[in-house]
Amino acid sequence: MDRRTALGVMSGFAAAAAADLREIHAQESTPRRGRLFKIATEEACSIPEIAEELRNIARTGWDNLDVLLIRDVYLRPSRTTARFLPSLLDIGAHRIEEMDAHGVDMHLLSLTAPGVQMFDTETAVSLAQLANDRLAEAVSAHPARFAALASFAPQDPKRAVKEMERAIRELGMNGFVVNSHTNGEYLDQPKYWPILEAAEALDAPIYIHPRAPSDGMAAPFRDYRMEAAVWGYGCEVGTHVVRLMLSGALDRFPKLKIVIGHMGEAIPFWLWRLDFMGAPGERRPNQLKPSEYFRRNFAITTSGVEDPLALRYCIDRIGVDSVMWAIDYPYQPTAPAVKFIETAPLSDEEREKIAHGNAERIFRIRVARES
Amino acid sequence: MDRRTALGVMSGFAAAAAADLREIHAQESTPRRGRLFKIATEEACSIPEIAEELRNIARTGWDNLDVLLIRDVYLRPSRTTARFLPSLLDIGAHRIEEMDAHGVDMHLLSLTAPGVQMFDTETAVSLAQLANDRLAEAVSAHPARFAALASFAPQDPKRAVKEMERAIRELGMNGFVVNSHTNGEYLDQPKYWPILEAAEALDAPIYIHPRAPSDGMAAPFRDYRMEAAVWGYGCEVGTHVVRLMLSGALDRFPKLKIVIGHMGEAIPFWLWRLDFMGAPGERRPNQLKPSEYFRRNFAITTSGVEDPLALRYCIDRIGVDSVMWAIDYPYQPTAPAVKFIETAPLSDEEREKIAHGNAERIFRIRVARES
Repeated sequence: MDRRTALGVMSGFAAAAAADLREIHAQESTPRRGRLFKIATEEACSIPEIAEELRNIARTGWDNLDVLLIRDVYLRPSRTTARFLPSLLDIGAHRIEEMDAHGVDMHLLSLTAPGVQMFDTETAVSLAQLANDRLAEAVSAHPARFAALASFAPQDPKRAVKEMERAIRELGMNGFVVNSHTNGEYLDQPKYWPILEAAEALDAPIYIHPRAPSDGMAAPFRDYRMEAAVWGYGCEVGTHVVRLMLSGALDRFPKLKIVIGHMGEAIPFWLWRLDFMGAPGERRPNQLKPSEYFRRNFAITTSGVEDPLALRYCIDRIGVDSVMWAIDYPYQPTAPAVKFIETAPLSDEEREKIAHGNAERIFRIRVARES
Repeated sequence: MDRRTALGVMSGFAAAAAADLREIHAQESTPRRGRLFKIATEEACSIPEIAEELRNIARTGWDNLDVLLIRDVYLRPSRTTARFLPSLLDIGAHRIEEMDAHGVDMHLLSLTAPGVQMFDTETAVSLAQLANDRLAEAVSAHPARFAALASFAPQDPKRAVKEMERAIRELGMNGFVVNSHTNGEYLDQPKYWPILEAAEALDAPIYIHPRAPSDGMAAPFRDYRMEAAVWGYGCEVGTHVVRLMLSGALDRFPKLKIVIGHMGEAIPFWLWRLDFMGAPGERRPNQLKPSEYFRRNFAITTSGVEDPLALRYCIDRIGVDSVMWAIDYPYQPTAPAVKFIETAPLSDEEREKIAHGNAERIFRIRVARES
């Protein structure tokens, strides 16, 4: 009996209800027993070697918007950001404690932004391999609690493809993460098509995670700390997604699956206008309408947007099978994200799909449920 | 009896219905008689002198994204864009015919993007005055059919304020239009505060209309014709609005009203994340949460987003009193925009407010309804 059925049955028994409810809530805080199974799908982590390289970047005078956040986390943390690095580096006991405390069953781990995409090519290639090895080890140590996305270095598409193949075939990872642009370039450009082709062939999704707007669009984001999650991230990833759709690149890779967070980076909200202005035709290389690509090639997660109205809009617009739950740990707090998926006005079927079912299907996550 | 009441009453009289329906539809094509009164609030126009200056810009090698659209409309029109210029220049008989054909009662006219904002300061100041005079004449000739927003040259804030005062006090215009950035600068910058102050003092809204992303953010929009309505416009105006909110500029002008089109340029969809990441606090100059500014200082129009789901989301998120109907004539076709406002799933009260009531209040439009 799930929680809401239990509550419904009990509604006629007012005298007994209070005591029983307390017991149900107590049961809920024990993970994975007769409650909503929850796979969080945009959960960040790092490894010391990459943290050290990012600290080196933080010490440079590089006039790039991502460097601001890197300084905040790796060099001169504020009260707000001080807890991020220890949390990112823990891919074991403490993280699992935190998950248990809030009834989160699994984290789909991914190397935190900007991944290896700000390193020179050789460093990027080798650190992506190292990160993948470490994440695979963490999954191997806790297969019931972790799954993981693989990183690669888009700086060298050929070696990226090799690492993608290794990550899926040898390490058994669940897909890939790319932190939007690489040196101001986007995945629609033909030099990156081998990456799209490999992901499609491996039947493994690419999660396009935000980073700050690329240098070529940075200017208006340089004030009021607009470069990051408050605004810049969404413009950056949204622009990346629109490039993928309007370039026609996805016509070559009809089975490619791309996942984007933050309730779809507002793309679902824009679909009517994208279709009206971006339909195939005069001087347009795309063969499908943007909404057709979006429904075919994309799925979204709820990371950082715990808004029941936006969730309902997205379900109604793109279908419940394309929506997955995420926390965005450690950047967003776990408790409200859990409360959001447990209490948002959804049918039981919708809630199960969003909380874990879609993630199991899309990322091929094998779940070891305790009986 | 309005149309839907009539249809409801008639639903029991199947035999008579067909003939009566034809009569009702015939009545509908006569504007302003027992039907939904409709004020379209983002309706573009131009004057020959400004068209000529834009044609001069189109002939230059200026490497700016707005120049692409200007070339398309003013220099080398395609099959799609050829009808725009004649439609823009007609602020009389043909436009009213088009309105009558679709049952549109009023156009709130505004000088089409990029207004005078790409001209040198002297040209901009004098052409804004000229455009305001012409639009005021058109309103004076057809006061039951037109209202109008005034232009000004942000290039010279001091003279802009003078023209704003003249436009409201002497010409009786209904507010202002600004086409987002001016030379890459946004209205949150203190040099433009006199403009915000004047609009607040005159109790006249500023409509921030799109133009292509400013040069400092142009790079990723240079491919696949992404600079304009399909994507760039929304990023540009959205970024402008977020700057106004996060800068704290609106703390100085609590009664300023800003209108944005295109279903709020996705800002309503982002409000949860904007609040979470942009709440007042550590290193944030804004005194209110973004959603508090948005509800207090902004209203939106439906131009170019005829999506009933997005409309419902916005009503539920920001309130029906802040939503107005628009066509975006001549860039968007009138018939579907009319169908949208007539058939979207709304209560009668919501429909009346969105179709005309809110526009009458926000833009102080005096309506001459035929009895």
